[in-house]
Amino acid sequence: MNRTPLVTLLLFFIALSQTQAEEGMFPISSIDRLGLSEKGMQLTASQIFNPDETCLLDGICRVNGCTGSFVSDNGLIITNHHCAYRAIQSASTAENDWLKNGFFSQSREQEIPAPGYVVRITESYRDVSAEVLAAVDDSMSATDRSKAIEKRRKELEKKAEEENAGMRADIAEMFTGKTYVLFLYTYIRDVRLVFAPPSSVGNFGGAVDNWEWPRHTGDFSFMRAYVAPDGSMADYDKANVPYQPKRHIQVSKAGANEGDFVFLLGYPGRTARHKTASFLEYEQNVRLPYVVDLYQWQIATMDEMSKNDRGVALKHSSRKQSLANVEKRSRGQLKGLRRANIVAKRRAVESQLQNFIDSSPDRKQKYGSLLKELDAVYSELGATAKYRLTLNNLVSACRGLGLAYTIYDAAVERAKSDLDREAAYMDRNYERTVDRAILGWKDWHRETDMQMLTEMKRRLRKTGPANSAGVVKAFLDDETLGDDSFAESKFNDESYIRSLFTKTADEIKAIDDPFLKSVIGLYPEFVRLREQSKEIDGRLGRLYGELIDVKQEFQKTSFVPDANGTLRMTYGNVKGYSPEDAVYKSPATTLRGVIEKTTGEEPFITPDRIQELYEKGEFEGFLHPTLNQVPVALLYNTDTTGGNSGSPILNGRGQLVGVNFDRAFEATINDFAWNESYSRSIGVDIRYVLWITGKVYQSQRLLDEMGVE
Amino acid sequence: MNRTPLVTLLLFFIALSQTQAEEGMFPISSIDRLGLSEKGMQLTASQIFNPDETCLLDGICRVNGCTGSFVSDNGLIITNHHCAYRAIQSASTAENDWLKNGFFSQSREQEIPAPGYVVRITESYRDVSAEVLAAVDDSMSATDRSKAIEKRRKELEKKAEEENAGMRADIAEMFTGKTYVLFLYTYIRDVRLVFAPPSSVGNFGGAVDNWEWPRHTGDFSFMRAYVAPDGSMADYDKANVPYQPKRHIQVSKAGANEGDFVFLLGYPGRTARHKTASFLEYEQNVRLPYVVDLYQWQIATMDEMSKNDRGVALKHSSRKQSLANVEKRSRGQLKGLRRANIVAKRRAVESQLQNFIDSSPDRKQKYGSLLKELDAVYSELGATAKYRLTLNNLVSACRGLGLAYTIYDAAVERAKSDLDREAAYMDRNYERTVDRAILGWKDWHRETDMQMLTEMKRRLRKTGPANSAGVVKAFLDDETLGDDSFAESKFNDESYIRSLFTKTADEIKAIDDPFLKSVIGLYPEFVRLREQSKEIDGRLGRLYGELIDVKQEFQKTSFVPDANGTLRMTYGNVKGYSPEDAVYKSPATTLRGVIEKTTGEEPFITPDRIQELYEKGEFEGFLHPTLNQVPVALLYNTDTTGGNSGSPILNGRGQLVGVNFDRAFEATINDFAWNESYSRSIGVDIRYVLWITGKVYQSQRLLDEMGVE
Repeated sequence: MNRTPLVTLLLFFIALSQTQAEEGMFPISSIDRLGLSEKGMQLTASQIFNPDETCLLDGICRVNGCTGSFVSDNGLIITNHHCAYRAIQSASTAENDWLKNGFFSQSREQEIPAPGYVVRITESYRDVSAEVLAAVDDSMSATDRSKAIEKRRKELEKKAEEENAGMRADIAEMFTGKTYVLFLYTYIRDVRLVFAPPSSVGNFGGAVDNWEWPRHTGDFSFMRAYVAPDGSMADYDKANVPYQPKRHIQVSKAGANEGDFVFLLGYPGRTARHKTASFLEYEQNVRLPYVVDLYQWQIATMDEMSKNDRGVALKHSSRKQSLANVEKRSRGQLKGLRRANIVAKRRAVESQLQNFIDSSPDRKQKYGSLLKELDAVYSELGATAKYRLTLNNLVSACRGLGLAYTIYDAAVERAKSDLDREAAYMDRNYERTVDRAILGWKDWHRETDMQMLTEMKRRLRKTGPANSAGVVKAFLDDETLGDDSFAESKFNDESYIRSLFTKTADEIKAIDDPFLKSVIGLYPEFVRLREQSKEIDGRLGRLYGELIDVKQEFQKTSFVPDANGTLRMTYGNVKGYSPEDAVYKSPATTLRGVIEKTTGEEPFITPDRIQELYEKGEFEGFLHPTLNQVPVALLYNTDTTGGNSGSPILNGRGQLVGVNFDRAFEATINDFAWNESYSRSIGVDIRYVLWITGKVYQSQRLLDEMGVE
Repeated sequence: MNRTPLVTLLLFFIALSQTQAEEGMFPISSIDRLGLSEKGMQLTASQIFNPDETCLLDGICRVNGCTGSFVSDNGLIITNHHCAYRAIQSASTAENDWLKNGFFSQSREQEIPAPGYVVRITESYRDVSAEVLAAVDDSMSATDRSKAIEKRRKELEKKAEEENAGMRADIAEMFTGKTYVLFLYTYIRDVRLVFAPPSSVGNFGGAVDNWEWPRHTGDFSFMRAYVAPDGSMADYDKANVPYQPKRHIQVSKAGANEGDFVFLLGYPGRTARHKTASFLEYEQNVRLPYVVDLYQWQIATMDEMSKNDRGVALKHSSRKQSLANVEKRSRGQLKGLRRANIVAKRRAVESQLQNFIDSSPDRKQKYGSLLKELDAVYSELGATAKYRLTLNNLVSACRGLGLAYTIYDAAVERAKSDLDREAAYMDRNYERTVDRAILGWKDWHRETDMQMLTEMKRRLRKTGPANSAGVVKAFLDDETLGDDSFAESKFNDESYIRSLFTKTADEIKAIDDPFLKSVIGLYPEFVRLREQSKEIDGRLGRLYGELIDVKQEFQKTSFVPDANGTLRMTYGNVKGYSPEDAVYKSPATTLRGVIEKTTGEEPFITPDRIQELYEKGEFEGFLHPTLNQVPVALLYNTDTTGGNSGSPILNGRGQLVGVNFDRAFEATINDFAWNESYSRSIGVDIRYVLWITGKVYQSQRLLDEMGVE
């Protein structure tokens, strides 16, 4: 595989003398400039990343939106239970409830497909900023700018994939409107579930403990990547064989203890540390409160529907877990934004920047109105936010409408040339788009959908613009979309639904389905909002590009780019913290804590077998050296965000000592601002993983495969 | 004053070599046997208590159900804000809202009466067990036994008061059915409010933080005891003068810090450490869940009623605070009982005791069925508990019925000879009983009372026996007691109500008042329950008396008696604790913590003036030496319970370093079982008291009076 590391790009990212050591989700090639050997790193930079030889990074992969580590030469992956959740749910039924009881395959033959899962391994990347930005010039309108960049990115991605058969190409925007990097990935489409502890272990504490420390959750699972017998990438097939990574991560049974140096590799999703105060204000005053309110209602509705029916509960489980996760994180962020006065602090920094701009006539001419223009964008967004958010949530909350929307949107877009389509409908993405739509439809539950529809209509009515926009008003006034629609709808057969994804817009229009009819009526408004959003993106792209330029001039340094789903490294130490006056939380929890928290009621149930082994004290080989207990979870001051779920926690020798899965409640605002005093990430300790896997659920075959004695 | 300490009695209480040092609410005279000088005590036992000379104890008083300390020679008392709460509420109106704004008298003339408050100072005590128990013999029925003891106690109390004019005599049962001690108290009836911080300080954190650590509440107030100009005890009169205690407690501005030795003096109310497992089971399965459920409903109802009317909110404030306090404590106790498996542990101890009993034919004959008989009593109590609890709560929840009940019960009882009456209606108690009834009636709110009545009837109907007991069935079937009753009732004029307390039962029967009529109809059932309760007490008295005997034989030691509202001492150190795996709570909170907790919304509002002084850093003289902040609250491992509210926290030299006001959540089960690992009490740090009083609310006159420089 041809690797092209881009040293100049990464030099631009980092000027280390001015960077706070612990903050930062660093692009990989910068690690030789972080001075890590003084901090406890025993690997050289080239052992971690080397374009010409196998290196540690060959053992790291992306598992859908999460991270995973290869822990054997036969494609065995360790990631989080919550990352494998969708796969466990898909395979579970009320009779065969693997979510509840755990899934323990005893051989490769018993490993089951994880539909919708893909695994990526970063193979190379190169800066394509010049090529991307060559598509735009200053005379363009914001919308045209946005569309031109989008199209150029698609061209480059498509070209790269044509040149590298079977691989996946993605261009990531590193600095908004300014820097673009093309990443090439090995792309594995046959992923299987190998081992998942029961939810009572993997999700112990549930929503109550989520985003909290101390934590007692065994949030890990094993999956396996498969390829065709000839080593090429392939969809699921019984004849496929385990993928053989160039290198796997060695498991260290010794774990990590208080004070130890650790580092994480992974694919963090999104941060907003380079965004303006006005963006944070929009989040704090508009979007986050909206999300909390709407999701709370949706979760309560699903709870009510699931109360007495495990089958219905299973249908809702993944969606509910995901909404609950975002809802609580949003609450944490709201609390943190307010308590730490983050908007005011960023406003103060911007005020200094404005003074700097105003202090030179040249700069003033070039950047004088920059911050004001950015403020204006967010104030514009805020004004119509409730309407837009509600319309967008209508099609995610109400799955009947959502499926209809994807079907019709696909038909309209597929009529365009490949590069002119929305990305989801390009040939290279289409199959996956259809599969995901079908997968979502499988969770569909008629009564819940009806409740969602009724409530979303009520909410939509309360937003001013809804009543004036003609097609939305027509939709709201249409009383025929109701209980009967669910009976009349043709969405009840997978092969029929799949066939709709091959039809033209006119053919779809001719179908007498209440959901399709409603969505087709609303469609012009969705298109208008999409165009509006491209216009906003165009403006933001140009403005943020300039902002980075002038900030660099002002601070005489460069920055770590915000997280964007590309491979990063972060490092720190196993370390406690003080979340509030007179409270100190130490960085390791134990099995005794699990037992103490166990009430026998959800979400604090512990399997009998664990309680028995605890009583008997069968911990040999898995004990913490000073706590004299099986350690369960670890806390450390690295810089992570969503997407780091499943990231390996590695010791200074690059050995796996745990699996990252969460942050402390105070650290939910990491996404907006970092602070060493409260930014803490949470992982499951490898000793708990091994004890649960080998001792509790007797899967010695996996310990053997990982080479654990 | 003639003091008769009872060394033999206290020797019986304690055998120190076998007592865990930190557990125990020790009777005073035992302190010379506690070896406290090694632990940090710098006072001799006789400096703390000495029957012949003035001593530290002369500076301690009981303030209604709380404890207080005299902190000047002019009767100035420091106690808790929540202890003075009723007085602050009584004086507050929606226009003149001292509860909200704080009360800061600038001179003695501005100090206001605290109706319903009395202050007691322990003057002497003597063992009267022989005299009390001479009234009973083994042939008596349980009810007769109970009544005979009750009557003998009343005789002895009355006699003691006749011999000591102006004083108050009370016989306390130290060990159930076994040991009785007569306490003589100086009894001050003119008590005034001097200084109360706003509720936003004195009750900062409200019900959310109540029973929790870390705590940031300035739970203190100043009151003053007044007597007639000639020094005799008197009701409130403008001409009265400050009471001059024999001795007052010196305030130490230095406070106390982590690790320091501290001791508390006070009047702890009730513990149940000598009760059986069956009693704890009754609490865990019956009474505590009942209280939590009923009080939650009552609190929610009062909240709803108070929502938009500060006048109504003030009427409910004291009652609501009191119910909320018990409700949350009960939840803590339930959680603690279950989590620590306390019933099973006590059951195990009892099983050992049973083996000991069975191992000797003599003992077996004498005590063989003792534990079974005790179990039988509680199982009997449990069987009808819901009915009894509901009927009793009917007259406390619904104040119209409650007042009617007291009026009629008084009339019936007053026809009897003084010693034969229920204690509340004896001549020596009658005035106070009437005053308290009137005080309660002043908080009466028609709509709330109506809701309480409706709900209590609904709950009563759900208890089986209610429907068979004739008079209760008649009460429940009587639909005429409803909204109109509140309009028709004659309970709307204080002097009229007061006049009812002088009438005979027949005269009351002739009054056409709906509440009186209802209560008179129910009265036979209340009397029957009262008799039943005396019968139970008689059985328990005999059984527990024997239990203590055999337990002493078994454990070859004697015990500290359960708390019973008499003067006790407890000691320990300022010390943090670990409430759960990976969490450590340190023992001092600070003003910075107050500011951090402040949200601007109830119950986390902080007065502007405090925020300003915090910003300015005006703390001189009040800083914690290592935290470099004004310390707010203290945590220490002493053994306290309700009634210790307001207890002085004293350093080794007997100087005041704080005021006790609460326990940590885990320590709510102190009442049932002590454990050094979680039993922690909470007090306000004297430095916060002085900073708030002198600096924030500019009451330098009080600091001068206390001799604080």
